[in-house]
Amino acid sequence: MTITITAFESSPDGGKGLARDMRIRWALEEVGLPYEIRLLSFRAMKEPAHLARHPFGQIPTYEEDGLTLFESGAILFHIAQHHAGLLPDDADARARAITWLFAALNTVEPPIVELEQAPYAEGDRPWHKERLPLMRDRVRTRLDQLSSHLGDGEWLDGAAFSAGDLMMVLVLRRLEGSGLLEEYPDLSAYVARGEARPAYQRAYADQLAVFKAAAD
Amino acid sequence: MTITITAFESSPDGGKGLARDMRIRWALEEVGLPYEIRLLSFRAMKEPAHLARHPFGQIPTYEEDGLTLFESGAILFHIAQHHAGLLPDDADARARAITWLFAALNTVEPPIVELEQAPYAEGDRPWHKERLPLMRDRVRTRLDQLSSHLGDGEWLDGAAFSAGDLMMVLVLRRLEGSGLLEEYPDLSAYVARGEARPAYQRAYADQLAVFKAAAD
Ligand SMILES: N[C@@H](CCC(=O)N[C@@H](CS)C(=O)NCC(=O)O)C(=O)O
Ligand SMILES: N[C@@H](CCC(=O)N[C@@H](CS)C(=O)NCC(=O)O)C(=O)O
Repeated sequence: MTITITAFESSPDGGKGLARDMRIRWALEEVGLPYEIRLLSFRAMKEPAHLARHPFGQIPTYEEDGLTLFESGAILFHIAQHHAGLLPDDADARARAITWLFAALNTVEPPIVELEQAPYAEGDRPWHKERLPLMRDRVRTRLDQLSSHLGDGEWLDGAAFSAGDLMMVLVLRRLEGSGLLEEYPDLSAYVARGEARPAYQRAYADQLAVFKAAAD
Repeated sequence: MTITITAFESSPDGGKGLARDMRIRWALEEVGLPYEIRLLSFRAMKEPAHLARHPFGQIPTYEEDGLTLFESGAILFHIAQHHAGLLPDDADARARAITWLFAALNTVEPPIVELEQAPYAEGDRPWHKERLPLMRDRVRTRLDQLSSHLGDGEWLDGAAFSAGDLMMVLVLRRLEGSGLLEEYPDLSAYVARGEARPAYQRAYADQLAVFKAAAD
């Protein structure tokens, strides 16, 4: 079985690992599966060959024999379901880990992406500066609640790292540069625990190598 | 096994079935499982008893014996995984259906919720009117792509209705009143196909009954 995923040909974040292929790279490293990368330009992402893989013309995608998937959440779940290391065996704990995967993507990520994308979408409008504090407060509401939930816990559902944590750590990393994560020492430490995992470090080095090769 | 879900005590949408308990009601009707409803006021949703069920203080939640879940996506997936009727048996088709569940929640829903929430969040700001067309165009980008994908298809992955369709239909229903869905006759017909299912109709009637009882 050969696994192929897609990623940006040249990293818009300068190799910081914020693009969503990191979600798949990290997951594949956690479960110990090798994979190949197909690099795409922004133009190629919107052309028919890629739209056949991904109806919204984005990265990442995942190919494995006859199967093609998109959506980082679905790909991460697919990997987690078929290989040990990302979901607990106990059925109830498994359902709770999947709940955190959805919470990362549907509750915590949207206000973060809104804040991150607004400068591109409306940065030239005079009211953008006035809207910024509203967006930042929406993010804070979610971080407050997440921080209350985490308490002294190591991971979101207790002592075992799961696919839900993998996704949440990477969603929180998208706050980089906003100063918001730094307001929450417990959440900063949670993200640092994720980043310290050997599988994360291998994934990070691999995406950085693509950036460095492109910059040469 | 008793299933209990939470819903709004009084429907902010006047019984139109736009609240997210519809996602769970419809799923439970599709698979033929009975359930009980715990109705919550807006105040009760933010109190400790409910925060123990849902760290973000929202509805819906799902309880079944010792297990408590939140996130409509996770609850729908949990039901679909344990009962026939919402996911295909074939492993690849199943992975694709799950992909559409994530696409509904992480790609199509966020710009729709942004458009829907903006009047509450910023309706009193002078620039809100100027921002509206930007938000509407972001929704159109996703509807264009979804419509291209759907083509003449009945459901998102061909002839079989799945949990991905259930979620997508209800996400698209949130456009009600915006006039945007009406710009896409194929997507309007897709939503109508979902609404025509007997399980949808039963779920809709049940949430409407709560609204009518509260209005008495
Ligand atoms: N919901 C999708 C989002 C994918 C996404 O936004 N990908 C970005 C890169 S991190 C992208 O391709 N952006 C370019 C574009 O949208 O045109 C997922 O989780 O996979
Ligand atoms: N991502 C969550 C969103 C839940 C959500 O937004 N629920 C709404 C009702 S449809 C709610 O409880 N709103 C009240 C609030 O957020 O305070 C899910 O899909 O379950």
